[in-house]
Amino acid sequence: MVYVSRKEHFNAAHKLYNPAWTKEKNEEVFGPCANENWHGHNFELIVTIKGKPHPDTGFVVDLKDLSKLIKESVIEKVDHKNLNLDVDFLLGVMPSCENIVMHFWNILEAGLKDIAPNAMLYRLKLYETPRNFVEYYGE
Amino acid sequence: MVYVSRKEHFNAAHKLYNPAWTKEKNEEVFGPCANENWHGHNFELIVTIKGKPHPDTGFVVDLKDLSKLIKESVIEKVDHKNLNLDVDFLLGVMPSCENIVMHFWNILEAGLKDIAPNAMLYRLKLYETPRNFVEYYGE
Amino acid sequence: MVYVSRKEHFNAAHKLYNPAWTKEKNEEVFGPCANENWHGHNFELIVTIKGKPHPDTGFVVDLKDLSKLIKESVIEKVDHKNLNLDVDFLLGVMPSCENIVMHFWNILEAGLKDIAPNAMLYRLKLYETPRNFVEYYGE
Amino acid sequence: MVYVSRKEHFNAAHKLYNPAWTKEKNEEVFGPCANENWHGHNFELIVTIKGKPHPDTGFVVDLKDLSKLIKESVIEKVDHKNLNLDVDFLLGVMPSCENIVMHFWNILEAGLKDIAPNAMLYRLKLYETPRNFVEYYGE
Amino acid sequence: MVYVSRKEHFNAAHKLYNPAWTKEKNEEVFGPCANENWHGHNFELIVTIKGKPHPDTGFVVDLKDLSKLIKESVIEKVDHKNLNLDVDFLLGVMPSCENIVMHFWNILEAGLKDIAPNAMLYRLKLYETPRNFVEYYGE
Amino acid sequence: MVYVSRKEHFNAAHKLYNPAWTKEKNEEVFGPCANENWHGHNFELIVTIKGKPHPDTGFVVDLKDLSKLIKESVIEKVDHKNLNLDVDFLLGVMPSCENIVMHFWNILEAGLKDIAPNAMLYRLKLYETPRNFVEYYGE
Repeated sequence: MVYVSRKEHFNAAHKLYNPAWTKEKNEEVFGPCANENWHGHNFELIVTIKGKPHPDTGFVVDLKDLSKLIKESVIEKVDHKNLNLDVDFLLGVMPSCENIVMHFWNILEAGLKDIAPNAMLYRLKLYETPRNFVEYYGE
Repeated sequence: MVYVSRKEHFNAAHKLYNPAWTKEKNEEVFGPCANENWHGHNFELIVTIKGKPHPDTGFVVDLKDLSKLIKESVIEKVDHKNLNLDVDFLLGVMPSCENIVMHFWNILEAGLKDIAPNAMLYRLKLYETPRNFVEYYGE
Repeated sequence: MVYVSRKEHFNAAHKLYNPAWTKEKNEEVFGPCANENWHGHNFELIVTIKGKPHPDTGFVVDLKDLSKLIKESVIEKVDHKNLNLDVDFLLGVMPSCENIVMHFWNILEAGLKDIAPNAMLYRLKLYETPRNFVEYYGE
Repeated sequence: MVYVSRKEHFNAAHKLYNPAWTKEKNEEVFGPCANENWHGHNFELIVTIKGKPHPDTGFVVDLKDLSKLIKESVIEKVDHKNLNLDVDFLLGVMPSCENIVMHFWNILEAGLKDIAPNAMLYRLKLYETPRNFVEYYGE
Repeated sequence: MVYVSRKEHFNAAHKLYNPAWTKEKNEEVFGPCANENWHGHNFELIVTIKGKPHPDTGFVVDLKDLSKLIKESVIEKVDHKNLNLDVDFLLGVMPSCENIVMHFWNILEAGLKDIAPNAMLYRLKLYETPRNFVEYYGE
Repeated sequence: MVYVSRKEHFNAAHKLYNPAWTKEKNEEVFGPCANENWHGHNFELIVTIKGKPHPDTGFVVDLKDLSKLIKESVIEKVDHKNLNLDVDFLLGVMPSCENIVMHFWNILEAGLKDIAPNAMLYRLKLYETPRNFVEYYGE
């Protein structure tokens, strides 16, 4: 088994704000991340696939295909977007990195079946800043 | 003369949108940067000071003082903010990196007089992404 | 389960020197790291927590709290310090990255109980240089 | 158990080209990577060792020894080389990152026995570009 | 005046080999860079433009246009190519970074006239590796 | 004219402490940098040379020669050393980055005459941390 990774990036706005709470409680819990006028980040997403290299190509997955899948199914929907307002699969979801990455998982796992049926989605890693990041393994 | 630099960062939302133009023209010129729901970045700001090292300290400027100046006069006003809506000195300004950095210059040049009267502000460098950045020398 | 990480840094001096050995043996084994006048590094510490995102916040752990814990319980004790002489919990310990990270573990695991009782410390990663680093999972 | 890593780099040329296929099929599958005149990369290799720190040294493995092993057994054979033509242990192998890293494994695992008999090779990570990389755990 | 920069990258093979010299002299002067079977790099190219921000856009140059110009006029000709064999404007040129960057200059300076007639090409910076790079200002 | 740069690194301990002052004044001015038990950094040094590429080689300076010069004349004297105690050319000098880089200049300028008599030392850039750095142009 070899683990193959591709890194893509997107720029987006968001805020952390629980509509069931008062503005004061949101500011107490989320601090400046609750700014009602939004803030934003350069996000970096690393998608890792697990599988056996194919004898004809030496590839677990063609990275051109993987890059295309990530861009078309995820990046185009979140890049230069507002994660609270503009992204269909995140509507009603608190856009913390933890929640974002779990919603990306389902999309990428489904898409991977088409481009590399014998490989598995292994890990998503999402950097919100160079110092804050999350990892998710699908369970 | 030695040139001393300090790097700070901030996360902010913005959009590029000229209110004198139609929505269509804004989208044509600015593309996804014109998204009315905003997008955002992790900005990196590098402030460079020019001067002679002081014989007692070996410092052109005390970097603790420079960091404090940058944070208190600039970063606190833009970090986790909306650059179109929340920043007094950017109201009515198109928040391109070029314009942002020119407005930072005036604030930092004034503040530097207090912490290092014999040194000069030499250069500001602002990264919007790791691949897009601007530099300004005050003229 | 989602894994959430926060990166902090500190600058410190140390030497690798076994007092049970002669100076010659120390120099033979540790090379320039045994310099009795010390050397130093910019260390980077990445702390990874494992847990379920809370439905109200989307957080496994509030990264502001985690950053504060790392800074108050670990960074303030080692930053701009001598790892052989100045750090109570490292006295008598050979300050290799391996040993440092194991001593950090106990402190951070205890502190995490207060800020995220349902989460677990998963991994510490300590960079001594960009090319040398260690990871520890608590066992 | 602590995991200790050392990062080394090499520059090399290669092409992805299956000699059992026509030129057209190679270009269809491998795209610009099939250019018969080669292309190349700055590769980064991270070797991770797993073991218990020795009580006398605090080391799982002496990183000077590990660096020497990686350089002498692997880097010198691939640095400034053509991975399709110049490397004895890669002759006849499609030089994808997946295949390269599996062939590095055997060499490094054998060499590690001499420098750290109680430690184990845990993981190889090979970056072909900052956005494309593979990991291998020996099985 | 503000200086605006865009970073692009390409992967290529090359060798440093003076055909007027013997193989021995080439190996003596260029060392492993003279390997007749080629080696390669991930090159990073930073293009810097100098000008006044336009009052309507806040832009010295539209970075989407600049990125397109760099990709179409330079990157597509060198990416996944052999710099000694495949690039029309480098034929017969020793492909050192110094020479490459001077040949890029002419192409980019001509192309810039179309996308930003009031701006000037100010600097090219070319990284061959993270530790080796050149800068050129057009004279 | 082309500007060619080479990046090298060293790890060292130092403290900022003016012996003409009391301990209290040193702590007031230098803060944690005055810790009498030292602290340290991973320094990065970038040496930039200015000149015309030689028609036979395409080189302003052979980077193998430049790397060797930097290592033998500077790095070997400061790597894994104490900058206050161990370095002959820094004895009695406050080891701020500003002062260090000015003392490196004289050594490198002299050495460059032997390896590239027609080139000039143009700039030294010294990173003490990724966020604090100085540049010096020899005057």
